[in-house]
Amino acid sequence: MCTRDDSKWEAEPGFQAAMEEARQGSKEGGVPIGACLVGADGKILGRGHNMRIQKGSPTLHAEISALENAGRLPGSVYKGATMYTSLSPCDMCTGACVMYGIKRVVIGENKTFVGGENYLKTRGIEVVVLDCAEGKELMAKFIREKPEEWYEDIGENPPA
Amino acid sequence: MCTRDDSKWEAEPGFQAAMEEARQGSKEGGVPIGACLVGADGKILGRGHNMRIQKGSPTLHAEISALENAGRLPGSVYKGATMYTSLSPCDMCTGACVMYGIKRVVIGENKTFVGGENYLKTRGIEVVVLDCAEGKELMAKFIREKPEEWYEDIGENPPA
Repeated sequence: MCTRDDSKWEAEPGFQAAMEEARQGSKEGGVPIGACLVGADGKILGRGHNMRIQKGSPTLHAEISALENAGRLPGSVYKGATMYTSLSPCDMCTGACVMYGIKRVVIGENKTFVGGENYLKTRGIEVVVLDCAEGKELMAKFIREKPEEWYEDIGENPPA
Repeated sequence: MCTRDDSKWEAEPGFQAAMEEARQGSKEGGVPIGACLVGADGKILGRGHNMRIQKGSPTLHAEISALENAGRLPGSVYKGATMYTSLSPCDMCTGACVMYGIKRVVIGENKTFVGGENYLKTRGIEVVVLDCAEGKELMAKFIREKPEEWYEDIGENPPA
């Protein structure tokens, strides 16, 4: 269920949109994580980036932003959808994908942080993990510059 | 980890606030589920109700609304907090409680819907399930009147 065939997935419009969102978040001084929800027909349903700093939001992680921006949808639409995200999804975003029964989650990188990938698999969701260098660089820069905001974003306290 | 000592928990200000939120959601014609996040010191950090219909939001479930309305908080604050919710939390809201490391989740009722209670326990979160008649009545009325909106809210299709 896990592949390193990066060229295939990184070329997907949904992954490109997720990375554009991550870059936009970085430009805004926010947590540089982006996501994009794509329907079974390949069309983008919604995209977004982490809005903790921009909106003072503790719940608008990238995946939640993408779901929110997609608006209200019948349950059936999610069942064939793919969530592209620049970083391994936290437990909240994992749970959102599980609740809506999203078919597949394509993750840019999981070196910076490992979220609920295994739980996604146990709930029957296909997981693809890439090794996206740009995503790692964006996160490394952010964590170096704003460590407290990063730890806050995943509900942890900064290391003493 | 599970108790039916309803009188103790139903009298808690956090649970009362969650039920006020559920009633408010019902008055607004929305999905009548409310939640309230209470800190270790007993003070309310944030409260809210499901905003699917009111805001066209697929992610503002009651618990997410309560977290959002609490605003940005250091990770340590969640660790002693209790989430009161009128209905068993879905997988997304379960994941949000897990991600933030909330200490305890007090659930009004789980007859209408059973969410991630067991998963919360496996992740070390104390779970209290009450048997709140008013919560069940609010939900029964809503599902009778707006079945499609209810199934949409949990990512399912209405029964054929």
